[in-house]
Amino acid sequence: MLTKDIIQDHNKTLEADHQFKLAYITELLDRKGIDAQNIIEKIKAFQVAIPSWALGTGGTRFGRFPNGGEPRNLEEKIEDVGLIHQLNGSSNSISLHIPWDIPSDANAVKQLLKEHSLTIDSVNSNTFQDQKDQSYSYKFGSLSHTQTNSRNLAIDHNIACIEYGKQLDSKVLTVWLADGSNFPGQQHFRKAYQRTADALSNIYAAMPSDWTMLIEYKPYEPFFYSMVIPDWGTSYSLCQQIGKNAQVLVDLGHHLPNTNIEQIVGRLMHFGRLGGFHFNGSMYGDDDLTTGSIKPYQFFLIFNELVDGMQDPNVKNPPLAWMIDASHNTKDPIEDLLQSVNAILATYAKALLVDRFALSDAQENNDVLRAEELLRDTFFTDVRALVAEASRQVGGALDPVATFRKVNIRENLINKRGKFSVATGL
Amino acid sequence: MLTKDIIQDHNKTLEADHQFKLAYITELLDRKGIDAQNIIEKIKAFQVAIPSWALGTGGTRFGRFPNGGEPRNLEEKIEDVGLIHQLNGSSNSISLHIPWDIPSDANAVKQLLKEHSLTIDSVNSNTFQDQKDQSYSYKFGSLSHTQTNSRNLAIDHNIACIEYGKQLDSKVLTVWLADGSNFPGQQHFRKAYQRTADALSNIYAAMPSDWTMLIEYKPYEPFFYSMVIPDWGTSYSLCQQIGKNAQVLVDLGHHLPNTNIEQIVGRLMHFGRLGGFHFNGSMYGDDDLTTGSIKPYQFFLIFNELVDGMQDPNVKNPPLAWMIDASHNTKDPIEDLLQSVNAILATYAKALLVDRFALSDAQENNDVLRAEELLRDTFFTDVRALVAEASRQVGGALDPVATFRKVNIRENLINKRGKFSVATGL
Amino acid sequence: MLTKDIIQDHNKTLEADHQFKLAYITELLDRKGIDAQNIIEKIKAFQVAIPSWALGTGGTRFGRFPNGGEPRNLEEKIEDVGLIHQLNGSSNSISLHIPWDIPSDANAVKQLLKEHSLTIDSVNSNTFQDQKDQSYSYKFGSLSHTQTNSRNLAIDHNIACIEYGKQLDSKVLTVWLADGSNFPGQQHFRKAYQRTADALSNIYAAMPSDWTMLIEYKPYEPFFYSMVIPDWGTSYSLCQQIGKNAQVLVDLGHHLPNTNIEQIVGRLMHFGRLGGFHFNGSMYGDDDLTTGSIKPYQFFLIFNELVDGMQDPNVKNPPLAWMIDASHNTKDPIEDLLQSVNAILATYAKALLVDRFALSDAQENNDVLRAEELLRDTFFTDVRALVAEASRQVGGALDPVATFRKVNIRENLINKRGKFSVATGL
Amino acid sequence: MLTKDIIQDHNKTLEADHQFKLAYITELLDRKGIDAQNIIEKIKAFQVAIPSWALGTGGTRFGRFPNGGEPRNLEEKIEDVGLIHQLNGSSNSISLHIPWDIPSDANAVKQLLKEHSLTIDSVNSNTFQDQKDQSYSYKFGSLSHTQTNSRNLAIDHNIACIEYGKQLDSKVLTVWLADGSNFPGQQHFRKAYQRTADALSNIYAAMPSDWTMLIEYKPYEPFFYSMVIPDWGTSYSLCQQIGKNAQVLVDLGHHLPNTNIEQIVGRLMHFGRLGGFHFNGSMYGDDDLTTGSIKPYQFFLIFNELVDGMQDPNVKNPPLAWMIDASHNTKDPIEDLLQSVNAILATYAKALLVDRFALSDAQENNDVLRAEELLRDTFFTDVRALVAEASRQVGGALDPVATFRKVNIRENLINKRGKFSVATGL
Repeated sequence: MLTKDIIQDHNKTLEADHQFKLAYITELLDRKGIDAQNIIEKIKAFQVAIPSWALGTGGTRFGRFPNGGEPRNLEEKIEDVGLIHQLNGSSNSISLHIPWDIPSDANAVKQLLKEHSLTIDSVNSNTFQDQKDQSYSYKFGSLSHTQTNSRNLAIDHNIACIEYGKQLDSKVLTVWLADGSNFPGQQHFRKAYQRTADALSNIYAAMPSDWTMLIEYKPYEPFFYSMVIPDWGTSYSLCQQIGKNAQVLVDLGHHLPNTNIEQIVGRLMHFGRLGGFHFNGSMYGDDDLTTGSIKPYQFFLIFNELVDGMQDPNVKNPPLAWMIDASHNTKDPIEDLLQSVNAILATYAKALLVDRFALSDAQENNDVLRAEELLRDTFFTDVRALVAEASRQVGGALDPVATFRKVNIRENLINKRGKFSVATGL
Repeated sequence: MLTKDIIQDHNKTLEADHQFKLAYITELLDRKGIDAQNIIEKIKAFQVAIPSWALGTGGTRFGRFPNGGEPRNLEEKIEDVGLIHQLNGSSNSISLHIPWDIPSDANAVKQLLKEHSLTIDSVNSNTFQDQKDQSYSYKFGSLSHTQTNSRNLAIDHNIACIEYGKQLDSKVLTVWLADGSNFPGQQHFRKAYQRTADALSNIYAAMPSDWTMLIEYKPYEPFFYSMVIPDWGTSYSLCQQIGKNAQVLVDLGHHLPNTNIEQIVGRLMHFGRLGGFHFNGSMYGDDDLTTGSIKPYQFFLIFNELVDGMQDPNVKNPPLAWMIDASHNTKDPIEDLLQSVNAILATYAKALLVDRFALSDAQENNDVLRAEELLRDTFFTDVRALVAEASRQVGGALDPVATFRKVNIRENLINKRGKFSVATGL
Repeated sequence: MLTKDIIQDHNKTLEADHQFKLAYITELLDRKGIDAQNIIEKIKAFQVAIPSWALGTGGTRFGRFPNGGEPRNLEEKIEDVGLIHQLNGSSNSISLHIPWDIPSDANAVKQLLKEHSLTIDSVNSNTFQDQKDQSYSYKFGSLSHTQTNSRNLAIDHNIACIEYGKQLDSKVLTVWLADGSNFPGQQHFRKAYQRTADALSNIYAAMPSDWTMLIEYKPYEPFFYSMVIPDWGTSYSLCQQIGKNAQVLVDLGHHLPNTNIEQIVGRLMHFGRLGGFHFNGSMYGDDDLTTGSIKPYQFFLIFNELVDGMQDPNVKNPPLAWMIDASHNTKDPIEDLLQSVNAILATYAKALLVDRFALSDAQENNDVLRAEELLRDTFFTDVRALVAEASRQVGGALDPVATFRKVNIRENLINKRGKFSVATGL
Repeated sequence: MLTKDIIQDHNKTLEADHQFKLAYITELLDRKGIDAQNIIEKIKAFQVAIPSWALGTGGTRFGRFPNGGEPRNLEEKIEDVGLIHQLNGSSNSISLHIPWDIPSDANAVKQLLKEHSLTIDSVNSNTFQDQKDQSYSYKFGSLSHTQTNSRNLAIDHNIACIEYGKQLDSKVLTVWLADGSNFPGQQHFRKAYQRTADALSNIYAAMPSDWTMLIEYKPYEPFFYSMVIPDWGTSYSLCQQIGKNAQVLVDLGHHLPNTNIEQIVGRLMHFGRLGGFHFNGSMYGDDDLTTGSIKPYQFFLIFNELVDGMQDPNVKNPPLAWMIDASHNTKDPIEDLLQSVNAILATYAKALLVDRFALSDAQENNDVLRAEELLRDTFFTDVRALVAEASRQVGGALDPVATFRKVNIRENLINKRGKFSVATGL
């Protein structure tokens, strides 16, 4: 229902204001010797994957307040991501969750993806829930389970995920291991670690050699005394044992209070083991809020570290997988995703503007204030017109959320899919 | 199915060991001039309410692994609490959650309660979920909602709770207000506070004069930027505005990291505004684990404060409502509740043993080490035989969990209620 | 040594760039119907007090690395604040710490203040250290001490502070009570609270009726188990008991992890009890870093709350005392203070720009995304040229730190005062 | 001044009570098939090093309240540790801090150590302070400094520490690297890490092959934005790069809020890289309180992990270095150390009592409650009589603190050393 013309028409109403802002930032950058169009090109090249499970309204253990018009199956999820990508030009892939998104007809799905200019980012296994009629339970763990039967079931499930991924040309398996314990004594820490390492090695062995395994960490939830992979150190040590294509995945919400996440990012890039990123926002824990909504400066500092590492030829880190992983409980999921991608692009753009030569000079000379102000100057520079322009140049909307609202997309989706449609997996 | 005789029979197998331990602690206390039986009497008098919603297996937003044999309605919930009370003699009341536990026939429910020697503790309102076909939504708040319709619905619901409570001879309304916001700007803090204060005043006005309103606080979850009642200071200020029968309820898991909860308890007792307690255990947030499972010493320090206040004639605090509020995700709910009550009683017993005269003397003279060691000495004294003896003296089990297992109660419940029964509200 | 001409000369080198940016923000605001000069006037009127103890290099318990040229006495501290005020036009007062800053000749000090266009902001008592030959110790507390002698000493000291303040035309007494305990049992919470309330009442009684008493809170440090005034709830309850001129002081670094400080600010303004603010920055605890250096968005949200309350005629809160309270361990103290004031002004300016009518409309209609974006739009708007212009218009520097460096002020101070001069109290 | 006879005389007054308790725990253990004397022998063999810097009163950045009678030099520090060891029989070594404890005559020091039955545990380098007339400063780092001169100075200092250690027969170098940054941008994370790794390698190369290098981590303080070695993952990765004799040192207070420390301990033992332990207690951060004073159950869980690893033949971890690292601000330092060692021994004893066979069985079968109760049962068993008996059997005091007080040791030390003596380094 959304067409290029509709987007262009809406853009026209915002054009004058946009050009005013764009002219200013272009001139401002020019005075610093930076070519604005060069930055815009980099923004255009930056793509963020959308997870299939984020297209429906999320909730907490206390309840869920559905928004209406939610996609009811994989095909409708792809449609929604297509819509997002049409609006912002920066979301050209989708992450699947197995078993929620098992394709019944892989070729048809690939065809649909192609129509929406999308690809599959990564496949994500799910061993944190029992599926109906599952032969062995994950109640007490999956890859770390004490019982061989449960463990093998989880290994087989992950291998099945790889197979589904192959059918859809994915090359990444993301493992978030929700195993852990709720009480002291419940789990033997060393044995649980070793069982996990062995199980991951088995899965790794079944993975094609051009695939990457991303190993996520999380300090707590769904378990509240210990998690088998609680921190980057554990993920990293597992990657070391498993193989060169095993990489750490950093989810912004998976850290203890006050953690300096940007330093972890730098650490992992230094070791060549940072494989991917889950974007979201957090104030208390794994809050799964909109990316950059609570601590935008920390988010910038993280991107500063990422860009610094990506631009440094001495860093032997592979290209990263970028993905949103949030829960949209109170906002419209599509609006929230558009807002998130926008925040990511603007933050990336700021990190690109950092004068690394001057920063390095200030650092080497311990001019603390100057080093800090170089970052602050960039952070406080308003680059939003660059992001809008990048979208415009690829046929997207200057203000994706405004266009989404203007043309009543949600109302249309509700009419089509119903007020109480529920996404598979929610 | 469980009878006094069965309990006594099982007790006999544990009797010799019990008497050995009881004789020691009795002699140990006697040497300190403390009469063990006097402590045992106080333990016997201490009763902890069981919440109706804790009798089924809980879960997290990621999933739920049912245990089987869960109560399917209010009557079966009462049966389960009756069973717990039979085993430990210390759980003579049940907390109801409206609308999950609306009695269809109040007289029949009262009769059933009487058969199990139970009473209704408090009624708990629920405005954190929308019920089917609800006319206005709580998605964006209830008592603090910007819209009068939603606000009035929530007020009426609370007043209805009072009515149900009256039918069942309860005298306490517990309000946990799950209102809050996920994002900066979403809610106007001052207006939301004032709307809440006004709504609570309306509910208070509908409450009989011998009732108590308990106002709970929680820093986050289900909302992750702000909660309308996030801390004891807010609860306290609301109580001041509303009336003398409004009291603060402290839930152990509802605090920011590193909070000194025992000091808050002392503060509120000093102000005469501590109305009740929700027991559970926590490592990271509102983990809802077994009481005392993570920080048993802090739990003791909290009880030390409670007992100190209850024994001080200068403290004008009303009697407290004691209730468990936990989520039993990995353990059998009934076993978990038995374990919790046991931990509460043992901790209460230790607090009773503190030599307050010596402690006060050490405090006045700033003998830090002696003051501390007086508490440590009590904490490290093994009083479990006193708790067991208290249970035995009222016809309960020496080791309630062991008896529960020995006589296969869960298996019987599963046979009767099924493997996949689900408690109302879960 | 610093003259208006020197400042103007240096400004000239930055003028072109400044005018370019100023023109843009002026036009940008004009398009929103906002008069830039009106905002600039408000920035010019905003004054932040400099604490006398922040002019020397701070340190941690592990050590201190002096910077050189530190003021050696009250007169030199006044000189330094005069210098800061000359550079930024926004620091027209100084906070004194007694006994570090006891004036030997009050008239001479007043004359010196006048020469530098300065006034005395508040007097701050110190009962967290024993002074040489002190008759009774504060080791185990001051206003909360169990012994009358120590308590009276602390009361008398606070009354003496009021006397010094009167001599210098201050009207504010700030009480940071460092009393607390390191171990469970050390202190009786309820008694310590009551002794503190009584002692504060005594001090309050000795205070002129046009004075304000600010009561600060802090959760931990220098004591690590409990503090007598750990949270806003305790400060607030003390103010309620003491009198209408007792007000809560919020120090940004004095909160537990993840605290929503902006909500506390709103709460206290709603109660008419927010008396003052200590600005600093924090990542882990009371880090005393540069204001806005770690969480600039939270800082903006706090200012948003302040401005919202100050502009609301229904809020009966008195004018606030604004003061920096940081420790400059690695940066030049004067540079750090200039940077801090700059961050404060820019953040205040942004809060002034918030469209409160539109925000209120979005809030009332629960348009979460729009409400949030209204704040984000303001936060991401670059207002630094407005702050620079405000400084310029009152004869200050466009870039105070740059001017400070350009004219070698620190080198001159070192030459004059020495490399190892130490500020009184450090 | 303290003699064996004095200790025995005081023991006699406590003997009857002790025998009553000892008889009970002996019988209790016997019923479980555990030989009490066997546990007592293990307690006797467990020795905890005392750090030289903990013998004087500590303080915070806000002040220090000296206790009197503090040791003024290395010789008096050795005397104090000798006294502690005489009283508890479990503190047979001392940790030195260079340059505070540089021995002027190594042979005389060795002779003195021998007289007190003491050895040197580890030597600890200090690069977190500038010494008087130091040629290059550590203000902006030491082993991670951007400038070669400062870095080399720090390397040389560490090598000098090794030399001092060799003279006194130590075999352990402990490196706590206080390097870090206070502000975003100040330090280049990856470069700082690599400089540190290189510097540590240089020091390692200068270390005899039978020495161990312990690398400590700490998340914050003295720096408040980042530390170069903030977490176990960083320490571990450095050890991997440096060599097999490099090991991680865990200090209990050096963790972010809510960290599961016992799991880290298990992790590092699994990797064979846990080298040592710094005991202290903590509620908020690096509080440096008495060991076990705040979270005694967590302390037990940590020891449970240690004992589990030490008893498992599959674990290839070297013997651990046990040391107290606390700050005694409000208690008498010697009393505090005696109390700490006592808490350590009692906790170790409890960990020895865990029925590992039953625990493993419960774990394998996911009997969560039983596994937990096995640990709780042990934790709540009162083993203090075993610790007292261990001390008695080696000629120490049944109640070391009581004896210390009874014979007026502090008064004697004050008479001898003065009321305001200050330990070197404080």
